[in-house]
Amino acid sequence: MIANDPYAELERRFARMSAVSRAGAILNWDRSTMMPDGASEDRADQLAALGVIGHEMMVAPDMAELLSRAEDGKADLDPWRAANLREMRHAWIHENALPSDLVEARTRASSACEMVWRDAKKKADFKALLPTLTEVVTITKRVGEAKAAALGLPLYDALLDEYEPGGRSARIDALFAELEAFLPAMLQKVMEAQKRAGAPLPLDGPFPVEAQRQLGLEMAKTLGFDFHHGRLDVSAHPFTGGTADDVRITTRYDEEDFTRALMGVLHETGHALYEVGRPRDWRRQPVGNARGMVLHESQSLLMEMQACRSDAFVAFASSRIRAVFGKSGPAWETDNIHRIYTRVAPGFIRVDADEVTYPLHVMLRYRLERAILGGDLALADLPGSWNDGMKELLGVGPPNDSLGCLQDIHWPDGAWGYFPTYTLGALAAAQLFAAARKAVPDLLGAIGKGDFAPLLGWLRANVHGKGSIADTDTILSQATGAPLSTAAFKAHLESRYLSA
Amino acid sequence: MIANDPYAELERRFARMSAVSRAGAILNWDRSTMMPDGASEDRADQLAALGVIGHEMMVAPDMAELLSRAEDGKADLDPWRAANLREMRHAWIHENALPSDLVEARTRASSACEMVWRDAKKKADFKALLPTLTEVVTITKRVGEAKAAALGLPLYDALLDEYEPGGRSARIDALFAELEAFLPAMLQKVMEAQKRAGAPLPLDGPFPVEAQRQLGLEMAKTLGFDFHHGRLDVSAHPFTGGTADDVRITTRYDEEDFTRALMGVLHETGHALYEVGRPRDWRRQPVGNARGMVLHESQSLLMEMQACRSDAFVAFASSRIRAVFGKSGPAWETDNIHRIYTRVAPGFIRVDADEVTYPLHVMLRYRLERAILGGDLALADLPGSWNDGMKELLGVGPPNDSLGCLQDIHWPDGAWGYFPTYTLGALAAAQLFAAARKAVPDLLGAIGKGDFAPLLGWLRANVHGKGSIADTDTILSQATGAPLSTAAFKAHLESRYLSA
Repeated sequence: MIANDPYAELERRFARMSAVSRAGAILNWDRSTMMPDGASEDRADQLAALGVIGHEMMVAPDMAELLSRAEDGKADLDPWRAANLREMRHAWIHENALPSDLVEARTRASSACEMVWRDAKKKADFKALLPTLTEVVTITKRVGEAKAAALGLPLYDALLDEYEPGGRSARIDALFAELEAFLPAMLQKVMEAQKRAGAPLPLDGPFPVEAQRQLGLEMAKTLGFDFHHGRLDVSAHPFTGGTADDVRITTRYDEEDFTRALMGVLHETGHALYEVGRPRDWRRQPVGNARGMVLHESQSLLMEMQACRSDAFVAFASSRIRAVFGKSGPAWETDNIHRIYTRVAPGFIRVDADEVTYPLHVMLRYRLERAILGGDLALADLPGSWNDGMKELLGVGPPNDSLGCLQDIHWPDGAWGYFPTYTLGALAAAQLFAAARKAVPDLLGAIGKGDFAPLLGWLRANVHGKGSIADTDTILSQATGAPLSTAAFKAHLESRYLSA
Repeated sequence: MIANDPYAELERRFARMSAVSRAGAILNWDRSTMMPDGASEDRADQLAALGVIGHEMMVAPDMAELLSRAEDGKADLDPWRAANLREMRHAWIHENALPSDLVEARTRASSACEMVWRDAKKKADFKALLPTLTEVVTITKRVGEAKAAALGLPLYDALLDEYEPGGRSARIDALFAELEAFLPAMLQKVMEAQKRAGAPLPLDGPFPVEAQRQLGLEMAKTLGFDFHHGRLDVSAHPFTGGTADDVRITTRYDEEDFTRALMGVLHETGHALYEVGRPRDWRRQPVGNARGMVLHESQSLLMEMQACRSDAFVAFASSRIRAVFGKSGPAWETDNIHRIYTRVAPGFIRVDADEVTYPLHVMLRYRLERAILGGDLALADLPGSWNDGMKELLGVGPPNDSLGCLQDIHWPDGAWGYFPTYTLGALAAAQLFAAARKAVPDLLGAIGKGDFAPLLGWLRANVHGKGSIADTDTILSQATGAPLSTAAFKAHLESRYLSA
């Protein structure tokens, strides 16, 4: 059946796909936070069924004709509807590029590999991972080839396009080259400056979980998180899930160290505010989706790295931190807490890295995943290349593969082409925050009083509320006057770490 | 597309419907336990989409032919598959009986009425409820007529059949007539005996929520609840939800009174054990579903009323109760706690009623809902008829409609034909427990030691594991030697309340 108004029929179908996908998002959140361990298979079956239902709606036989007919009438659509139709087509191309058996093989291979990875990581046994990871790479290449053909892109770009629509490796190469020319020298200068200043005093605990949770709730609210439309819970790996009207953030608590959970909550709050701020009238259509992983990560890093590690915010937060944990003394002064929150040190683990060394971790992964997918690096040689790259970029060599090439879930999980978005997000965060500071008088002054309304208002207008109306560079250009670049990020690092 | 093996194709489709329905069950649980209040509309949209998807799968144009062709080959199916096909047909008849617009009107009317009801109940304002409740009754009658035609049943029986497949009002009339001849006199005798014995000593609190929760978890485990496949949480109205592999029970805590939450947990545990015990190979097919609300309620009441208010169990539990709350003294002796847990008193509120007066509440509702649906009672006259009925059956007259005909959600919610299953469940519980005591040597002795394995083993074999392989009376007859009757229930009440 083909409708009289093909665009309206498409909206109806995509609204239903959105409802199914939002249902899946809550079920995924539950799986990581609430679900008893015996229910994994049951939940996998539910999520697989929802996945197939969504897929079948997208690849329905009449979709191609509906899209074409709607595109014939595109001139009559207003800009949001026209952009929505463009995003529908883009989603359809991605979904139609893969035959069902490849979709299924991809899911199966990554599930199997992820299971093996958990054990291999514990045992630092890369060899144990090699067979299933090889299978993942083989299938990822097939996926990449199919998407490359459908999108008219090189293989890596076709994979990247799933996470960052419009993202292109040529662009990344150029940006990363600038970072590679800048960061190692920068890192050395920061380390020297830190050495001169001496180590910060340690913050002695313990810090009861409930007090940490209350502090996290309070600070998330301070940033603008609305708990009528969201929750904060615990999971093994912190994430932001749920839906725009019901956003679920998670963290994990360590009674010996509150600093990571607190900053983790603020990071996820940045993601959550983006979700909540998506255009109200379009959040159940493709054009209302978050633009991509670059802007998504920019929002978490803008909050965590730009706003919440600023002198101004740490001064505000440290008085609350002292009150909540009942602490005082030199270690608990703002200056010491700020030094802890801006400590730089090359390490083995990406997720523990500071903002200076983090891009170096990402650049290594980007380099290696392109080499593997391009056939220039055999998987068996990954540990060696990893360790060489760590020495070259960060000056440290992991003592085993658990602290090396086995640390991340992304490759076993099939997320090839995802890593660079972390660092592109960090660049975008710096660029957006610099623009916000120019546009909003005394932005840091407000943040120092715990008033995030001016910042949030600017982000809503310039990022969140744009949804997917335009591509990342257009949104960035309109918001900051320029497409994505390394300039603001470099300036930020120099200002924070070398200006004192 | 019609498959070569129509029965196998039906299994495939019903498995997917089951997955969608299980996903909905978790989302419903989340709505009542975890969801932030601002997400109601979002969640309603997700659940509506899953509902429509399930409905469309069931009424797909080729389903009638698939069912017919599978039925042609029924002789080749084993008993489980044959029963599964019968249950598929039954589910299909129910779903196909209603045109889509009536399904939607029903959902809309009951949602609207439920909203009005919450406020009307607070204000004891029946007149405020009358318009939307009239709409619900009008639509319920249309639903009943459509289902009556499809099933070849009287209107009320067609509605009842949704909750208790095979349930018939002629049967209920006969059983309820026996109870009506028995209970009022019984109640009087119990009240006299209680008066002679004097009131039990009060259990003074407060009882911290966390201690109550730990006690509930411990006792649920004692009954056989496996927390690898389930959770215990808090909700405004206690319920059992989730799936057989992931069963979610809830309660609510009152720091002044632990007794209701504890017994509430054991009640829901009874429901949960039924869900978990459904036949493992068939739990995602119609034949693996719980047989109906009569057997479901029988399992909660068997645990709560038969097993857990027995002298034996109260003796076991009261020592744990004393330990958990750090209490001692005469009020905390087993005998006093048992007297509290078997206290009988006519009251206004069904959900607060003891097991002697509960059926009288249900009989009133059954009488009234049949009169309303049959056109013999105008809705405007409901409060008067309610209050007259309360006086006649229970000897008490509610001072306002909030404590009277506005107390239950069921009618506003569209659940007409549901009420009698509570009392049929109580009869079945007594009958099954009596049979279990005959079949299992010293069953109460084991329960008195906190050993529920013998009871659970018998229930698994005789009730839980049967799923929907046969109708309720057949399952009961095989388990107890007779179809549903009032005999065991009457004997139970006499033994518990009048034998001392």
